[in-house]
Amino acid sequence: MDFVTGVTKKETLEISELLAGDLTGETVRVNGAVHAIRDMGEVAFVILRKREGLLQCVYEEGKTNFDLKDLKEGATVEVKGVVSKEDRAPNGIEIRLSEIQVLSEPVEPMPLAISKWKLNTSLEANLNYRAISLRNVRERAKFRIQEGIVRGFRDFLYKEGFTEIHTPKLGAKSAEGGANLFKLEYFHRPAILQQSPQFYKQMMVGVFDRVFETAPVFRAEKHNTKRHLNEYTSLDFEMGYIDGYEDIMAMETGFLQYTMELLSKEYAKELKMLNITLPNVDKIPAVRFDEAKQKVSEKYGRKIRNPYDLEPEEEALIGKYYKEECGADFVFITHYPSKKRPFYAMDDPEDATYTLSFDLLFHGLEITTGGQRIHDYNELLAKIEKRGMTTEGMEQYLSAFKHGMPPHGGLGIGLERLTMQLVGEDNVRETTLFPRDLSRLEP
Amino acid sequence: MDFVTGVTKKETLEISELLAGDLTGETVRVNGAVHAIRDMGEVAFVILRKREGLLQCVYEEGKTNFDLKDLKEGATVEVKGVVSKEDRAPNGIEIRLSEIQVLSEPVEPMPLAISKWKLNTSLEANLNYRAISLRNVRERAKFRIQEGIVRGFRDFLYKEGFTEIHTPKLGAKSAEGGANLFKLEYFHRPAILQQSPQFYKQMMVGVFDRVFETAPVFRAEKHNTKRHLNEYTSLDFEMGYIDGYEDIMAMETGFLQYTMELLSKEYAKELKMLNITLPNVDKIPAVRFDEAKQKVSEKYGRKIRNPYDLEPEEEALIGKYYKEECGADFVFITHYPSKKRPFYAMDDPEDATYTLSFDLLFHGLEITTGGQRIHDYNELLAKIEKRGMTTEGMEQYLSAFKHGMPPHGGLGIGLERLTMQLVGEDNVRETTLFPRDLSRLEP
Repeated sequence: MDFVTGVTKKETLEISELLAGDLTGETVRVNGAVHAIRDMGEVAFVILRKREGLLQCVYEEGKTNFDLKDLKEGATVEVKGVVSKEDRAPNGIEIRLSEIQVLSEPVEPMPLAISKWKLNTSLEANLNYRAISLRNVRERAKFRIQEGIVRGFRDFLYKEGFTEIHTPKLGAKSAEGGANLFKLEYFHRPAILQQSPQFYKQMMVGVFDRVFETAPVFRAEKHNTKRHLNEYTSLDFEMGYIDGYEDIMAMETGFLQYTMELLSKEYAKELKMLNITLPNVDKIPAVRFDEAKQKVSEKYGRKIRNPYDLEPEEEALIGKYYKEECGADFVFITHYPSKKRPFYAMDDPEDATYTLSFDLLFHGLEITTGGQRIHDYNELLAKIEKRGMTTEGMEQYLSAFKHGMPPHGGLGIGLERLTMQLVGEDNVRETTLFPRDLSRLEP
Repeated sequence: MDFVTGVTKKETLEISELLAGDLTGETVRVNGAVHAIRDMGEVAFVILRKREGLLQCVYEEGKTNFDLKDLKEGATVEVKGVVSKEDRAPNGIEIRLSEIQVLSEPVEPMPLAISKWKLNTSLEANLNYRAISLRNVRERAKFRIQEGIVRGFRDFLYKEGFTEIHTPKLGAKSAEGGANLFKLEYFHRPAILQQSPQFYKQMMVGVFDRVFETAPVFRAEKHNTKRHLNEYTSLDFEMGYIDGYEDIMAMETGFLQYTMELLSKEYAKELKMLNITLPNVDKIPAVRFDEAKQKVSEKYGRKIRNPYDLEPEEEALIGKYYKEECGADFVFITHYPSKKRPFYAMDDPEDATYTLSFDLLFHGLEITTGGQRIHDYNELLAKIEKRGMTTEGMEQYLSAFKHGMPPHGGLGIGLERLTMQLVGEDNVRETTLFPRDLSRLEP
């Protein structure tokens, strides 16, 4: 019998360790994937791909105990060599190789030129060869940024007294009902996949006051656009004891401020690699739905076709307007029409045509929907009735209200959309590891 | 147009703020849910439930601008009063009320006595009234502990250079195939819900070297036991450039060490409330499958019925054995028989009957399955063929290997099971917010 006592330091070094002190002249061991081989005749550059970036190794004939011809791009290796300063190499260092040990070998050449700086391929090929295309360092950097966003969301909310929850994705009835639900059979009973954790997070406000979840949601929508996915990661929070929907917008602004700070500190390498300028989130304009529509119509001479909804083009123009007028990257659009919001949205007491709700646009694209919810049981029942809905299947949800719920509200953020806007992509599939859309169920 | 500038401090105080300095004699405002009212005649204790715990408020007739008869358990309120020291109250303080403002009211009395210290109800009732039963402070404390576990998992792995990923739950074919898959229709195509992120996390090892995910998995197993769920949260990681499966066990031990430390620091209140003694994770015994079976059989006189599998009772006895023999709460069982492990498990080169894999038992219950995986393309193909399986639907998975993969391995931890063992429950439903089992699809 042995005992396992925890993580022990390996002999092999990571890039940050190579850069931590001056190791020039020292012999080190490193491992990595052979990202590219550049054979210059007497010497060759062997570029290793490691999790922290690329590392240049120098192969010199006669000095390395290995035949370069036996080394393939895509192999994984452990090498030994001497650290040397080299301004033209990534991070300013290179390893002059003395030994190479092959850990694994590919059986076929790469189908895509992943070692190019920009992956020069169609979106279709990129997605079809996802396990390979993401080995391109700029491709994978987008998902490091995505990690930073989720991490910022959670860390900020922990700090603000939120509790993380895990709610079921299989259910008997959805939060918001409707036709856009994936249906399945659950041990001879009809079931659905949740399109939102809405009901669950509201119920949990009665328990923890403030809750959040970062989890997949499922939408059986037949949209085929650059901004829709049929499965995506939703960053949801819900908070009690609010004074109004403004508290929700303030919390989201706080999240964005915290996250931009985190990204600039811990993901600087990736931001630089992708040439990203972080948006200004010191102050975010909040403007009423009807006012925003009006302003845009006036400035850009666009006729208002539907006073109760925002068309994608209109959202884009709103983004443009507030960028031009006050340099804003983000805009909160408040007071959405009641008929376009779910039953649980709280109507504006001053004008029930509108709700105490909002969307957040980022560079003209909706990335968040949120608002205050109805917390009074009788008011909720009345709204359900007014809409001609039934309470069937909502018994547990309603029981939370029957037994007392604080004034509350919350929001849901589409992670892939937020990432897309931040890294400046124009298709949400580019910022989804394995997108699911009308035609894509694999890989 | 207004601007939203971030989170601003509210006038109402949280419990930690009330305890941060000596506020005795100060007038404060707090909000919360009326958890219990104890009417003693001239005075009454109004216990508020807040996210950080319970707060005792004192209602004195004539001194509070409110009729106690108008206050209901389950209401949410904002109150004003003077902070006073009181050793018998939770946290040693109470608020002597001058004002009460009701924010919301319940319409019915509680169906469960949630203000009792221990919720005295059946599991069935507890689960049926989940939105209410979790308002009991000990019930909700279990899920705070659960939060600490997930948080520890992520923070430890970030520190160790892992990247967080989000992989799709809808797919065309599962990681491990088989009958235990929920099936559904995806835009006129057959689809399944993933029972594990296995294939995806392995593919992503080729991209990020080290990855993890914390997300739901779905198992259509017809088990009806105290330890099975049909949907649960899986804590998964996968890491490249390992020297062997021992590296995976070391990483898991590191996670447990980090997490127990985090819990003792940040969740001390909940640990105390639930009377939890944290397990010792300084060193965890690792013992071979066949050896563990043998030892248990000898010591407890239990006949070995199936040499290739561990029965639940046998796992329990192994837990007992290593507790008795070396005071261990956890035991790694290594070298599971190959026929009981999936095709991608790496066989032991010294004896291909066994694999370089392990389970982790916690107090005699399996909470983790992990091990080293095959990384060589041809070896993987050979194993698939040997098992009589087809590679259909695995093209993308296999392409990662075709183009080079480092030696790697990983594991999956059942969050609800780990929580159950840690808090000392005997049914995994007790540590699942909204469990899904053969008969339960709601709430």
